[in-house]
Amino acid sequence: MTLTLTPLSEIPLIHPGDNLADMALSAIHLNGINLRDGDILVLTQKIVSKAENRLVNLTTITPSKEAVELSGRCEKDPRLVELILRESKSILRVRPGSVIVEHQLGFICANAGIDHSNVQGLSGNPEEWVLLLPENPDRSALEIRQKIETSTGVHIGVMIIDSHGRAWRIGVVGTCIGLSGLPALIDERGQPDLFGYKLRITIVSAADELAAAASLVMGEASEGTPVVHVRGFPYPLRESSLQELIRPKDQDMFR
Amino acid sequence: MTLTLTPLSEIPLIHPGDNLADMALSAIHLNGINLRDGDILVLTQKIVSKAENRLVNLTTITPSKEAVELSGRCEKDPRLVELILRESKSILRVRPGSVIVEHQLGFICANAGIDHSNVQGLSGNPEEWVLLLPENPDRSALEIRQKIETSTGVHIGVMIIDSHGRAWRIGVVGTCIGLSGLPALIDERGQPDLFGYKLRITIVSAADELAAAASLVMGEASEGTPVVHVRGFPYPLRESSLQELIRPKDQDMFR
Repeated sequence: MTLTLTPLSEIPLIHPGDNLADMALSAIHLNGINLRDGDILVLTQKIVSKAENRLVNLTTITPSKEAVELSGRCEKDPRLVELILRESKSILRVRPGSVIVEHQLGFICANAGIDHSNVQGLSGNPEEWVLLLPENPDRSALEIRQKIETSTGVHIGVMIIDSHGRAWRIGVVGTCIGLSGLPALIDERGQPDLFGYKLRITIVSAADELAAAASLVMGEASEGTPVVHVRGFPYPLRESSLQELIRPKDQDMFR
Repeated sequence: MTLTLTPLSEIPLIHPGDNLADMALSAIHLNGINLRDGDILVLTQKIVSKAENRLVNLTTITPSKEAVELSGRCEKDPRLVELILRESKSILRVRPGSVIVEHQLGFICANAGIDHSNVQGLSGNPEEWVLLLPENPDRSALEIRQKIETSTGVHIGVMIIDSHGRAWRIGVVGTCIGLSGLPALIDERGQPDLFGYKLRITIVSAADELAAAASLVMGEASEGTPVVHVRGFPYPLRESSLQELIRPKDQDMFR
């Protein structure tokens, strides 16, 4: 079956309090798509965070001693470093320009996923505003999904993605940070292979593969097309959570 | 623009010496697709390795002292460990079931990408046959691309993928191990963002994002649909190489 990924035009700039479910449904309609059972919507973290008002003005933040010390090593604003520390469980590595952390949400990422906000109409210097990740992206995905399912009667999956770097490869790739109604992992262990004589041992991160695919079509203009419609996902939809994707600490060889 | 990924049915089981370009073209035709400029074909490493006869029978391998020592720590056949050592530049981590290496090709992966072969019709015990990665996957991709471009007059990209684990997340994802005629990376650095006041700092691994997308549609039956046709790749095609994707050792924080 063919997998199709359509970046939706006609999503307006998002502001705190906006109803993303309604905006996505309207854009789906304007893009000439009829939502069907089994479709998936992928949203970039930025618009979810903006709608949930995860904006912080750095002038309201007083950096701790630890943040001030760390800011020297990573060459970042101490107030931003303070937020990175608050959003993180632990610090893995520090170098000029990045702090690699274990985020409170469980995954490893740079700078706790905090970005400059790009929200228009905020008071003061726009460089003072930053955007935290959604507080609970699984819950955000579930809420958007429930609203859409309620107003359409169609069963869908919803995923929220961010761009993450990798330990040993150049460039960021779209990565799942929250999901509802689609499988995070596909467990092939114990299935016979094509020749029937060997059992598979593979677990596939279908959610991260889809996150990368959706990120590709959001592309450079990701703030212009922050929602992607997916049809033809090749596995049955089911409930799952971000936690499926996090490698437990005791299996981590590289921390 | 919509991105479509179609796993091609009608690819036969591959044997050493097979002409993958001809087989892919035939399958494209049988799947009702007319190849167009800008299309991309993604092939799983397994069929490229089989066509290039990268099969090794373990009974022909004499393990070194180092391989015997390592085999105890990783609980693998010492002859397989010998091949892993020969295919690798260095060993990063060892635990029961996996040896994480820097492959001769430059990337970090488990067990040097060596897999059991699943090639039918080989002599002796099928469990004794293993399959190495292609010797030079960029060259393999170029050769397949040139054959297809010569016989069709159409300009395409060709990528070869494998499934790689990640340091901190569960599950494998499709990852580029060789390519020809499409960009490995998209460098957004220095481009103004949507609001014009901030320059982007992002490099996106478009090839790895596409590799993940293609792997998703190959799915559990990847040995049955080892070639994916891609239309709507959102960036201009260009020459590139696997080396673009490899993080230099001096930037590696996690080795």
